[in-house]
Amino acid sequence: MDNHLFKSSNSVSKWPFHKVLIANRGEIAVRIIRTCRILGLATVAVYSAADAEALHVKLADEAVSIGPANAEQSYLNIAALIGAAQLTGADAIHPGYGFLSESADFAQACRDNHIKLIGPSPAVIEMLGDKETARLTMKKAGLPVVKGSQAVVTTLAEARAQANQIGYPVMLKASAGGGGKGMRIINSVTDLTQQFATAQEEAVASFNDNRMYLEQYLPAPRHIEVQIIADRYGHAVALGERDCTIQARHQKVIEEAPAVVLPANVREEMLRRSEQAVSQLNYEGVGTIEFLYNPDGSYYFMEMNTRIQVEHPVTELITGTDLVEIQLRLAAGAELSTRRPQPFGFALECRVNALTPGQITGLHLPSGQGVRIESALYQGYRVPTNYDGMIAKIIVYGDRRQRVLQQMQAVIDETVIKGIKTNLDLLEQILQEPDFQRLATDVNWLDNRSKGE
Amino acid sequence: MDNHLFKSSNSVSKWPFHKVLIANRGEIAVRIIRTCRILGLATVAVYSAADAEALHVKLADEAVSIGPANAEQSYLNIAALIGAAQLTGADAIHPGYGFLSESADFAQACRDNHIKLIGPSPAVIEMLGDKETARLTMKKAGLPVVKGSQAVVTTLAEARAQANQIGYPVMLKASAGGGGKGMRIINSVTDLTQQFATAQEEAVASFNDNRMYLEQYLPAPRHIEVQIIADRYGHAVALGERDCTIQARHQKVIEEAPAVVLPANVREEMLRRSEQAVSQLNYEGVGTIEFLYNPDGSYYFMEMNTRIQVEHPVTELITGTDLVEIQLRLAAGAELSTRRPQPFGFALECRVNALTPGQITGLHLPSGQGVRIESALYQGYRVPTNYDGMIAKIIVYGDRRQRVLQQMQAVIDETVIKGIKTNLDLLEQILQEPDFQRLATDVNWLDNRSKGE
Repeated sequence: MDNHLFKSSNSVSKWPFHKVLIANRGEIAVRIIRTCRILGLATVAVYSAADAEALHVKLADEAVSIGPANAEQSYLNIAALIGAAQLTGADAIHPGYGFLSESADFAQACRDNHIKLIGPSPAVIEMLGDKETARLTMKKAGLPVVKGSQAVVTTLAEARAQANQIGYPVMLKASAGGGGKGMRIINSVTDLTQQFATAQEEAVASFNDNRMYLEQYLPAPRHIEVQIIADRYGHAVALGERDCTIQARHQKVIEEAPAVVLPANVREEMLRRSEQAVSQLNYEGVGTIEFLYNPDGSYYFMEMNTRIQVEHPVTELITGTDLVEIQLRLAAGAELSTRRPQPFGFALECRVNALTPGQITGLHLPSGQGVRIESALYQGYRVPTNYDGMIAKIIVYGDRRQRVLQQMQAVIDETVIKGIKTNLDLLEQILQEPDFQRLATDVNWLDNRSKGE
Repeated sequence: MDNHLFKSSNSVSKWPFHKVLIANRGEIAVRIIRTCRILGLATVAVYSAADAEALHVKLADEAVSIGPANAEQSYLNIAALIGAAQLTGADAIHPGYGFLSESADFAQACRDNHIKLIGPSPAVIEMLGDKETARLTMKKAGLPVVKGSQAVVTTLAEARAQANQIGYPVMLKASAGGGGKGMRIINSVTDLTQQFATAQEEAVASFNDNRMYLEQYLPAPRHIEVQIIADRYGHAVALGERDCTIQARHQKVIEEAPAVVLPANVREEMLRRSEQAVSQLNYEGVGTIEFLYNPDGSYYFMEMNTRIQVEHPVTELITGTDLVEIQLRLAAGAELSTRRPQPFGFALECRVNALTPGQITGLHLPSGQGVRIESALYQGYRVPTNYDGMIAKIIVYGDRRQRVLQQMQAVIDETVIKGIKTNLDLLEQILQEPDFQRLATDVNWLDNRSKGE
């Protein structure tokens, strides 16, 4: 990893923690364990009843059963996780992504129990976890935001007033939301009247929170996000940006770095403003600022994720860094140099999803120059039904986008996963689409394509 | 791959060949097939009776059986290989390394049959294949050579005269040699008298050639080699150098790039002189110039290999290139730009050897940022007894040698190969040796260590 990121006078010579519990599963747990091993940090895996045979359990130095298959009772069970850390003497917890990675309650519980959570403080997680508060904070900190309601709404009448002020089309969202739940595109007042109640019901069902908000709807934006790393001394550095425009129902499918559509001056401004905004937040660790980007060069802050992203490897490849190592060093109190590294080359990631559960009866994952595969698969492994279906990430790095696209096609073509259905065929089709190849896409492109539009 | 290597006005827009037969097996056959697939070139695998279930056979577009397990009758059988190319309409052959990769006869047979061999001409292969001719040629072309006999010797009397001229200690070698056969360190005239006959007998048995030669013996050199790429228009470019000092009985075990022991001015001179020498040879393709390097900064040409090396990935990683793609483009007539690329970072390769034959009953090969594994293994694969025991190469890339060493230890520790014995334990031990870590080694270090010295 690129050591120039840190002030050498301040690099970690002794870790303030020695044993890291990974409060996660699957490929990200494996990936975190690997970096801990390189750095000489002991590791503790946790596992639900569905994951007793999982790879992360086999690779960690120790493993603790934390409950039944149901995530609410295991990977989302704060008491069980804190208990596992106490049982094993783990003095740090890495939350990965998903599950409790953006839970202020979990961060607070770690703090109360004198366990170092690898990530920002409970207060920062809570502030950025509320979309409306985050948007107001980031607007104040200098990031452009879409026109939107200055406050949350809970009734149709309030929503209508806000929509009139913004102008149609608007996007209706759950304030506590994520994953597309409670989200609607609203083209007119009639639309709003028809859809507000059901969207709000969805929000209540998903998040137990009836607060909604509205914002200016951008019909064909790209999703571009900035990777931020920040230390406790107020330094924030942008490790370039990613283009995550290829999404299916708001779930990212293919990500790339850098975002080659960005004009150089727009990129420079986006990175600089992101750094400036985060340096005002008392933020520690890695984080991602998500923007919607329009073809005219305008862009708008959407949200900031206070954890490592699924798609972090594309950034690692173009910057020669290890973001999990950076997380650990920042959590250990290392101080960043403020020099932004110069990215080099191009990286592409395809998410491989299991479409059915089952046992992996045959497995061939390619390798080679520029190829990196992050997965927790092995031959004989039984993919459980209980969790997210993302079972592997195929990442290719090279110096030019066109060559990387060619190589990714060859790599996916070579990949064999027997025993379950996967989305490998879909990935191969997308890679062959002229629109994808020439970046004539937006965040709705894949959904429209599936609908045959 | 780094396209700046080629003059853009002259890059290959249409391949002059379309179907590549890979006259090899194992990891290098798999690796060549992968690059062909990226470039849209059809592939033909060949296999002996021992390799019907090998991975390279499964991955190629077509596969042809070329004979029994015995390599003499299959992978070294020129007629069978030319026949397989004709049968499948392959218009190019990639020889890989070993087997016929440095056979002038094979190169000539390809030429006679209008098949493009990916490599230099038969005349160049023949000239560089004879160690004495190669040394005289390279001396004339400006490379330093050790003091040595100006001609081959076939009798003890001739050998004694030469040794007196050079001064003891001397190295006695088979002129047609390789792999340590017929090679002896000679400390005195008594030594020479005692050992000449048996060494010559070994040379005859191994190469059917009784010509020997003597050269100045360097007691504790490092093995440093320069990766050369050259086009048919007389341009030769050095893609940095490798340090392959860790050897067991003249077989490389661990290789690294760059050679961090080289002072910058020595490296610059070594690369420049290598480029200048090769540009005088009418050389086309990739090649490696091997030097012995002394702690005082002096270095001496040993030999030039006219094929891709086992250890080529460490060069690919620090230069961001694909050497098989470069081979194919050079064979297709592409013209090099003369700008030498600036290497970045540090790469380390460990060769994993099978110590026993058998079936792979369990297999776990790590992945992750900076990790590349080249192998033809799969779970259930039966490692045959008939060929070289090198079954996988584990390569780690990062920005600093120390971090790469730490990561390599973690990667080897994670690697699981069940069903056969391997040298993974030895590799792990070497990585932990302080002498290895601080580069206090020479080409005899590993053999001395094994002897407990």
